[in-house]
Amino acid sequence: MTQSVNELRAKVSTPSDREIRTERIFNAPRERVWKALTDPALVAQWWGRGNKLVIERMEVQRGGRWRFVEHAPDGAHGFEGRYREVTPPERVVQTFEWDGMPGHVLVETMTLEALADGRTRLVTVSLFHTTEERDGMLHTDMAEGMEQSYAALDKVLAQLG
Amino acid sequence: MTQSVNELRAKVSTPSDREIRTERIFNAPRERVWKALTDPALVAQWWGRGNKLVIERMEVQRGGRWRFVEHAPDGAHGFEGRYREVTPPERVVQTFEWDGMPGHVLVETMTLEALADGRTRLVTVSLFHTTEERDGMLHTDMAEGMEQSYAALDKVLAQLG
Repeated sequence: MTQSVNELRAKVSTPSDREIRTERIFNAPRERVWKALTDPALVAQWWGRGNKLVIERMEVQRGGRWRFVEHAPDGAHGFEGRYREVTPPERVVQTFEWDGMPGHVLVETMTLEALADGRTRLVTVSLFHTTEERDGMLHTDMAEGMEQSYAALDKVLAQLG
Repeated sequence: MTQSVNELRAKVSTPSDREIRTERIFNAPRERVWKALTDPALVAQWWGRGNKLVIERMEVQRGGRWRFVEHAPDGAHGFEGRYREVTPPERVVQTFEWDGMPGHVLVETMTLEALADGRTRLVTVSLFHTTEERDGMLHTDMAEGMEQSYAALDKVLAQLG
């Protein structure tokens, strides 16, 4: 099955003044996408977009913590959070905080929808405490970074198939 | 100097649909209140309201973590967060998360105002991601717990004087 170029670009929108919503279709069934999103050995292969990723913690259950350190050309960047809800294979709610802006915490709700054609739609809604924090994220290279991560995730999913 | 009963009650208000604001005057100069709020050995004496408090981490600087475990009659309760801003002796901004509701994070902004009469006004504004989370906090015994903590803080401040 082939995908059009449009489908391979994530759709980014702002459903409210404190949210960012992204939507992307992956060419794999939901159980496989779930595995690639929640198995640390697989996450290490795509989350860092080609940069070395050290997964210091990844306790995928309610109340568990996660902490990743991405070793990019400009240095090491730590990211962390805590799982609020883990409902396989359809929903994860977790917090997200970057060491560079400590104490600025957003909540990510990831929903995996099984499509009739066997593919999976991943929708991520990020809720910020303030519009300023939301806009700050929009003004980073977040969208480009996400595209790179998702392209790497495509490859992991293909290898798993 | 004596305080009226009214002054010893914290004023609680809701300045927006996602915030709780509390205000309390303490009978001590600002530097002393700052010390009681930021020195772990002193915090251990008042934060737990008479319950044993174990301070697992308290790194009072931007990016630092804090984690307290209160040993109450009904069991142990963990609380934690991260410092966003620490500006002695006037302002601390930190996150706050209770283990019982993991991934629900509020941001507390504490401001210490030095009054002309040598006392200190402590204003705390808590910002939640949603109104539901804010209302959930209002419906706990938060206000009573805060009164108990502040009464214990009064005693610590008197002993420091």
